[in-house]
Amino acid sequence: PKYVPMVAEYSDVIQIGARNMQNYELLKAVGRMEKPVLLKRGMSATMTEFLMSAEYIISEGNPNIILCERGIRTFVEYSRNTLDLNVVPAIKNISHLPILVDPSHGTGRKDLVGPLSLGALAVGADGLMIEVHPRPETAFSDADQTLDAMEFKKLMLKITDYVEWQQHYQQQEIPVSS
Amino acid sequence: PKYVPMVAEYSDVIQIGARNMQNYELLKAVGRMEKPVLLKRGMSATMTEFLMSAEYIISEGNPNIILCERGIRTFVEYSRNTLDLNVVPAIKNISHLPILVDPSHGTGRKDLVGPLSLGALAVGADGLMIEVHPRPETAFSDADQTLDAMEFKKLMLKITDYVEWQQHYQQQEIPVSS
Amino acid sequence: PKYVPMVAEYSDVIQIGARNMQNYELLKAVGRMEKPVLLKRGMSATMTEFLMSAEYIISEGNPNIILCERGIRTFVEYSRNTLDLNVVPAIKNISHLPILVDPSHGTGRKDLVGPLSLGALAVGADGLMIEVHPRPETAFSDADQTLDAMEFKKLMLKITDYVEWQQHYQQQEIPVSS
Amino acid sequence: PKYVPMVAEYSDVIQIGARNMQNYELLKAVGRMEKPVLLKRGMSATMTEFLMSAEYIISEGNPNIILCERGIRTFVEYSRNTLDLNVVPAIKNISHLPILVDPSHGTGRKDLVGPLSLGALAVGADGLMIEVHPRPETAFSDADQTLDAMEFKKLMLKITDYVEWQQHYQQQEIPVSS
Repeated sequence: PKYVPMVAEYSDVIQIGARNMQNYELLKAVGRMEKPVLLKRGMSATMTEFLMSAEYIISEGNPNIILCERGIRTFVEYSRNTLDLNVVPAIKNISHLPILVDPSHGTGRKDLVGPLSLGALAVGADGLMIEVHPRPETAFSDADQTLDAMEFKKLMLKITDYVEWQQHYQQQEIPVSS
Repeated sequence: PKYVPMVAEYSDVIQIGARNMQNYELLKAVGRMEKPVLLKRGMSATMTEFLMSAEYIISEGNPNIILCERGIRTFVEYSRNTLDLNVVPAIKNISHLPILVDPSHGTGRKDLVGPLSLGALAVGADGLMIEVHPRPETAFSDADQTLDAMEFKKLMLKITDYVEWQQHYQQQEIPVSS
Repeated sequence: PKYVPMVAEYSDVIQIGARNMQNYELLKAVGRMEKPVLLKRGMSATMTEFLMSAEYIISEGNPNIILCERGIRTFVEYSRNTLDLNVVPAIKNISHLPILVDPSHGTGRKDLVGPLSLGALAVGADGLMIEVHPRPETAFSDADQTLDAMEFKKLMLKITDYVEWQQHYQQQEIPVSS
Repeated sequence: PKYVPMVAEYSDVIQIGARNMQNYELLKAVGRMEKPVLLKRGMSATMTEFLMSAEYIISEGNPNIILCERGIRTFVEYSRNTLDLNVVPAIKNISHLPILVDPSHGTGRKDLVGPLSLGALAVGADGLMIEVHPRPETAFSDADQTLDAMEFKKLMLKITDYVEWQQHYQQQEIPVSS
């Protein structure tokens, strides 16, 4: 908590990592700042706990919160975490907060980052958080889940094209109350 | 197992439910048929166990297997199961088998079926398995996750448009070895 | 199911393995026998599902059921399964059925079998199911969780002494309605 | 972290709650104190992560750590958490640190606290952490898992008798290298 004002001074966004999602002193400290807060879901947090942590920040006066789904811990063996894409539309139904998805931590495998990026947008995510490094194999951490510049560029082209389709579809769609 | 030949006679596809994914006698019995088999992932099956169950069927002579991801059991409280979309591209990387996604069981909530259907296609699923009923509220089971005809039609329009985008994108994409 | 009468003829107890806990045809088949049925909990079965599977057997006429907790599937990395000892007194509170614990599958590690055997009895289990082999390192399966004859004998001495303490304590205990 | 010196001045033991097990600034702050630290396992922490959090404290100079297993988060529906008693002997095999078990949080049900207390001691726990309140139904939190004075006294009598048996058994036991 004591470093929060300094971090807020030099950063555009303050990120609360998954392991600190229920560090209530830290939540209150960032709640007293004006900078936006990126709140990552804890690896075994329920949806209710996730939204309650956002409430801790809001209750101190800072309503600028961006949620981020980054995968939950399950029995699954082939991916580092299990990306819970159900949570995106479920939160959209009950909260106005924007929600990002982190397919890098959510899969732990660079070969899955591309498909899950598209998947996240398709379920309604407001944005993505993707790990990129000029030379992933020399990265300090998380090399297995990090794209290089070419992989990222290729993915961005596809994402851009997808988002154009999505926007075009929404404009032509006849509004129906769901 | 003893009903398998009769079921095979009158059905186009034989479905093995999640609770029977490791019922080896049943797997071997459908392996001796020629009809395609839709193999649903067990609710706590690892990817390896899922593919091994397919091997049981193949080893008896029936290679016509369609895999189906239908959600795994986790601590999550707001959805009936957690749809594991990571598994779709992960299986695509190591197996030639087609894979469907069942967003009805995978979420247990009709308001999530639409978004997760798009999400499933976006991560590379070969098809979807969606529960539809003319009057879901009178359905014998699973009413909460079942679409009515209008909801299904609206979803199909969106899916059709999405698939057109996807096919168009793949045709124009410059092939890059990943 | 078709082998059930033959198995019943030559066995003292019919075991339903964890992977078949929801194989309803099999449950019904053993429900038509008179031999006792050892029903192992599925690796992701809730307590309710476990007891419902017992009901399937009872409803066909066979009330001789022995339940068996053998570990559930969790995120835990150091043991093969997580032995759920909470379930033993929880079931005792609502069911008259006897319940065994299998610390061999429930841990997957022979160094944990001894302590968890005592733990199982301490929480109220009616018995234990322990894998023993004259030469575990040559066993066809599950070598890592299998005791040899000396280890088993040593454990039995301790268990016997523990059970004597338990019986003695219960006799002297002043009855209190819990 | 800033309150740590004050807490250390007035407390005999500093408790790090499950939600802060990976709050590294807090771990380092208590590592600079001399008071013993009770470190509770995070609700989805692996054994390795649990021991690594202890290392954070030790590396700052405070070796007086007491570990505490308090249940992990699983799919299970009938108990608040799943008490992982496997972890007690597993940690004993690789660490010299004492380990307590908290059956109150580990079950969330007062009717399970007694049996799991015995179970914890039987698997080798060095102590127990049990919630007691003169009038549990008026407690500020966790009423469902809290014993009253009479229930606690009755449990302590049984525990005392059990521990006597355990000590007596260990003295008579012929030492065998395991």
